Amino acid sequence: MSLNSFGRLLRVTTWGESHGPAIGAVVDGCPPGLTLGEADLQPWLDRRRPGTSRFTTQRQEPDTVRILSGVYEGRTTGTPIALHIDNVDQRSKDYAGVAQAYRPGHADYAYDAKYGFRDPRGGGRSSARETAMRVAAGGVARLVIPEVRVRAYLVELGGDRVETFDDAEIDANPFFCPDAAAAARWEVLLDAARKAGSSLGAVVECVATGVPAGWGSPVYGKLDADLAAACMSINAVKGVEIGDGFAAARLRGEDNADAMRPGPDGPVFLSNHAGGTAGGISTGQPVVVRMALKPTSSILTPVETIDRSGAAAEIATPGRHDPCVGIRAAPVMEAMVALVLADAKLQHRAQCG
Amino acid sequence: MSLNSFGRLLRVTTWGESHGPAIGAVVDGCPPGLTLGEADLQPWLDRRRPGTSRFTTQRQEPDTVRILSGVYEGRTTGTPIALHIDNVDQRSKDYAGVAQAYRPGHADYAYDAKYGFRDPRGGGRSSARETAMRVAAGGVARLVIPEVRVRAYLVELGGDRVETFDDAEIDANPFFCPDAAAAARWEVLLDAARKAGSSLGAVVECVATGVPAGWGSPVYGKLDADLAAACMSINAVKGVEIGDGFAAARLRGEDNADAMRPGPDGPVFLSNHAGGTAGGISTGQPVVVRMALKPTSSILTPVETIDRSGAAAEIATPGRHDPCVGIRAAPVMEAMVALVLADAKLQHRAQCG
Amino acid sequence: MSLNSFGRLLRVTTWGESHGPAIGAVVDGCPPGLTLGEADLQPWLDRRRPGTSRFTTQRQEPDTVRILSGVYEGRTTGTPIALHIDNVDQRSKDYAGVAQAYRPGHADYAYDAKYGFRDPRGGGRSSARETAMRVAAGGVARLVIPEVRVRAYLVELGGDRVETFDDAEIDANPFFCPDAAAAARWEVLLDAARKAGSSLGAVVECVATGVPAGWGSPVYGKLDADLAAACMSINAVKGVEIGDGFAAARLRGEDNADAMRPGPDGPVFLSNHAGGTAGGISTGQPVVVRMALKPTSSILTPVETIDRSGAAAEIATPGRHDPCVGIRAAPVMEAMVALVLADAKLQHRAQCG
Amino acid sequence: MSLNSFGRLLRVTTWGESHGPAIGAVVDGCPPGLTLGEADLQPWLDRRRPGTSRFTTQRQEPDTVRILSGVYEGRTTGTPIALHIDNVDQRSKDYAGVAQAYRPGHADYAYDAKYGFRDPRGGGRSSARETAMRVAAGGVARLVIPEVRVRAYLVELGGDRVETFDDAEIDANPFFCPDAAAAARWEVLLDAARKAGSSLGAVVECVATGVPAGWGSPVYGKLDADLAAACMSINAVKGVEIGDGFAAARLRGEDNADAMRPGPDGPVFLSNHAGGTAGGISTGQPVVVRMALKPTSSILTPVETIDRSGAAAEIATPGRHDPCVGIRAAPVMEAMVALVLADAKLQHRAQCG
Repeated sequence: MSLNSFGRLLRVTTWGESHGPAIGAVVDGCPPGLTLGEADLQPWLDRRRPGTSRFTTQRQEPDTVRILSGVYEGRTTGTPIALHIDNVDQRSKDYAGVAQAYRPGHADYAYDAKYGFRDPRGGGRSSARETAMRVAAGGVARLVIPEVRVRAYLVELGGDRVETFDDAEIDANPFFCPDAAAAARWEVLLDAARKAGSSLGAVVECVATGVPAGWGSPVYGKLDADLAAACMSINAVKGVEIGDGFAAARLRGEDNADAMRPGPDGPVFLSNHAGGTAGGISTGQPVVVRMALKPTSSILTPVETIDRSGAAAEIATPGRHDPCVGIRAAPVMEAMVALVLADAKLQHRAQCG
Repeated sequence: MSLNSFGRLLRVTTWGESHGPAIGAVVDGCPPGLTLGEADLQPWLDRRRPGTSRFTTQRQEPDTVRILSGVYEGRTTGTPIALHIDNVDQRSKDYAGVAQAYRPGHADYAYDAKYGFRDPRGGGRSSARETAMRVAAGGVARLVIPEVRVRAYLVELGGDRVETFDDAEIDANPFFCPDAAAAARWEVLLDAARKAGSSLGAVVECVATGVPAGWGSPVYGKLDADLAAACMSINAVKGVEIGDGFAAARLRGEDNADAMRPGPDGPVFLSNHAGGTAGGISTGQPVVVRMALKPTSSILTPVETIDRSGAAAEIATPGRHDPCVGIRAAPVMEAMVALVLADAKLQHRAQCG
Repeated sequence: MSLNSFGRLLRVTTWGESHGPAIGAVVDGCPPGLTLGEADLQPWLDRRRPGTSRFTTQRQEPDTVRILSGVYEGRTTGTPIALHIDNVDQRSKDYAGVAQAYRPGHADYAYDAKYGFRDPRGGGRSSARETAMRVAAGGVARLVIPEVRVRAYLVELGGDRVETFDDAEIDANPFFCPDAAAAARWEVLLDAARKAGSSLGAVVECVATGVPAGWGSPVYGKLDADLAAACMSINAVKGVEIGDGFAAARLRGEDNADAMRPGPDGPVFLSNHAGGTAGGISTGQPVVVRMALKPTSSILTPVETIDRSGAAAEIATPGRHDPCVGIRAAPVMEAMVALVLADAKLQHRAQCG
Repeated sequence: MSLNSFGRLLRVTTWGESHGPAIGAVVDGCPPGLTLGEADLQPWLDRRRPGTSRFTTQRQEPDTVRILSGVYEGRTTGTPIALHIDNVDQRSKDYAGVAQAYRPGHADYAYDAKYGFRDPRGGGRSSARETAMRVAAGGVARLVIPEVRVRAYLVELGGDRVETFDDAEIDANPFFCPDAAAAARWEVLLDAARKAGSSLGAVVECVATGVPAGWGSPVYGKLDADLAAACMSINAVKGVEIGDGFAAARLRGEDNADAMRPGPDGPVFLSNHAGGTAGGISTGQPVVVRMALKPTSSILTPVETIDRSGAAAEIATPGRHDPCVGIRAAPVMEAMVALVLADAKLQHRAQCG
């Protein structure tokens, strides 16, 4: 089944385990003639790359991507684009304990229950290492939608929310935080959590501007549904909102309505409670998505659990882990949103010409 | 494209417009030999049926479902099950205004932007009338997973949250509300909103018990992702959470961990922050999903808008509408969750035998 | 699973049994704005309709199609098009014997082996009655590709081949035979077979003109592969050829090459051994497909078999059957080829703009 | 779109060009716990490997496969299996002419018409080199169906048919020919064609024994349709038959019926005209498929053509080519049939338990 594939017309299939020799992706359905080289993808990967600050895992992975097919003389040919990254810094010995006992909150027990056994090294297939390939594939998707800008940033870390938004600030701190003051507070928060052997959760927001009206489809192909599935498929995500999301449930109908006025290039909306979609189709407003990530499950604090034989155990997870997986999830979210939108563009072109 | 289909192995395709002659669904991939008749589906439809209280639309639709194929001598044959409901109470004249001007928050403008024109009668394909077929198809799904009980109820209406949970209360009030006191408050709230020509939003929660460990799949086939897409495809839904959802982002790692102890039939979990999934796969705990619905977009209060020619206009939507679409969304949510779980069961059987 | 669906972007799902109340199809992904009414589909159905000559089954089915959704004010809206035909002339009592013993060559035994039981009336889901919906759906597909003309005809019946081709003759005899002399011979042949309680096979050819170069895709999306699957899914078909087909295996490389010369609108090909495709992609030449149908399995001549209990039995199939299923397969083949080409057009538009 | 993917539940995605750095495949949906290593796949690849006799291309490719994911401690984990083969012997300079002028019968013109340009080196994506990955993936499929034996062999080369069948002979000559006398004749035939700068076609037959009754599905998921698509997707294939195929069209109903008698383990069939399927579902008889391959399009004999600018040209294709592509297609056909059957097994398990 295509459970490791994403997308309808621009279709990405990923493979690879955390401690296998490599990870990779195949991007099928890309339009021909787009200028594409490794240099178009590497910058996005560098933003997600681990080991760039003390607030992410210290695993050293250069994440150098190679394009093995689908490009000829610098342009996409319309055939599958194979993307490949070698794993270079595995420390599988850290996982001897994990192989025997189940880390609560992690996929260990569920994988064993499903498959009968599992690759415990670094979490195997359940590791967030897989998301590197999403970022690479998302780089291809961005080329399909040059009219769109996709930008993700953290709006909450450990329960502490941002209060201001400065786009230039996002890449100026290790948190993809658009509020310099919040970033300063988060530094303290996360240092404390890390030292306590704990971890924190986060909320990431993504805005796509430049999406024209008409992308997405009714009923089960709603842009909202595709965005929700895309975000919920990211490791540790437990909630997704479009536009006002849960807050919309507390508004009255007249307050939630995004009134329209005539404008020079289509309607001018007086608000964007809906987050850029109506009936599952884009309206021309910015597409706004938010997702919540639980705190990292791999922590040093010992937790009560059972082992493979079913006996009582206690587990602490040494290894090298992100104290807040929400941080590096920001470039991943951008990639997934870009993939959804690129697909929606191709779908729209197929049906509506 | 299969944009009006849902599911991988138990696949539902719906068709029909609010004011067309009928609506229908085809359920493909159902296991053979299940006892199935209209009487197995009608009770679920009756729960969603409009016109049963003053808190839902006054459109009178008996929603009598007929099974046109896939059943022989009372048992499913393994071939497609066609479900059919005739529309009997259309009042298309109510939609003369809608045909000309766009209702903010509704799909009107987006459909025109996408398709060039639209069926304005009752919202056409964008109407929540389509969800009747989900409920019927969900009734089939329930037969595929007799080991699972799926139950949805409102936990918030107009911003007012329930404080107690009594399963027996859910079907005893017109709000699928598990808290009798809250139900009494909501009656007042919603009466007031309705009389003011306004509308309210809601939050619906769904719990599936009896799901064994091992359903769902890694990466893009995560149970969480499928549930999120299922819920986000329901009209007016703008947010989805699994387990603690957004609240998990405010917990520390050790507080969010669902510790395990040995039990007689597999592990006993000490908490269920995760909502029954880990790594996208069920853990054997109850699966818990929540979704937020915005207030009904069709309201009597006039709102600023534009018409099809792009000129300024004002619109109020008479017609017959639910003052809170979240209420009748509860049985729809149950159906979607049942469809996701039935599919996951078949997927698991395919791969893991 | 989508085993009762066909197509990628223009996706048809059919349902219904031979002796159920009705049969139907849902066509999803149709471009919006196409002029469509029942009158656009009925003529194609009338060509396939049974009971129009003594050479087809005497079951009287008007096959009157109704469009239940997806069309507003005479134009497609881009939402699913539901097509519906009531079954009016079932004689299920003919099938008492079939319910107990397996007709060799028919699906009876295989269905029981797969599903544990089956609907024996008229062959249930395995009946060629299902193909009526293909013809209806094919009528929609034709509207998507107005630039293409799709035309099928018999080139062989009971081993007797046509020797001339006159397009005008095809609809002038009950065999869709382009050679008047052959049609006269076939009348004698088939009358004799019918009276002897036997049946005959046939070969049907389909030519699509007007297909531009560039439709279809490499590798698993080859136009050839899609056409082969489309034809092989038609009841009783056991062989498919593109262009010269099996005869090409007896040519030398230089004789099989379709040489090209410069022409005013792209290349002029000096031959069409390939049948209009190269590397799975259309070349602008006519697309030529041929399929072989075995003789009808339901015959009056008794054949040795077993019954449901596994005991020896003998079966003769009274009922009302086509003495040569190949005849009415011609309009079905046209429909399937039209569906494949319409889909390829939309796929091409999606990827290549 | 998934145009480079094959299969529903056991899903293979291939990538790579003839003269790119590597080719690869991702196999998704494989059941967990199967013993799998490179040594299980390499023997099948060695059978397809070029350069093993003077009757295949002299390109020297060891085709050493590596498994990069999805296997842990020698067993499949249920996650995607990435297969990788480095290309080592490209001679791209041979293709300077091909880059400018279109080889008749080859994909050159069609690719340019579709994509606007193409990778001309070795045929790029249209090269039969892609089929190496099918053979590797087919090796995985075989592990999923240990109860089935899949065996392909040539029954015709250059129009000369085999007259005897000796299974042991198949691997004893360079033609996968089950008839030693025919193999001797083919040696002469093919030597002559090669020296004349020409090429020959072939017919390959594949028999799968051990397939139980009940695999495959009605209507569009017919085993016949899946087998036809699988074979027609192989380079140079222009015809496919199941069982008697086109010859069945010349039989009378009673002669084509595969009569049944009671047997100790289900029915004993008195013949196998149907080739092991009925109504698209396996009957327990051997599954028999035949496919026709045109003569290699790349020949030394000059052919009239046009160049990229549309001007008249003449082309002869030097390079290193198989004088009969049908030979190495035998292991590829086995792989495709194994993939179809493995998928059908998983599908059957999903729906029918």
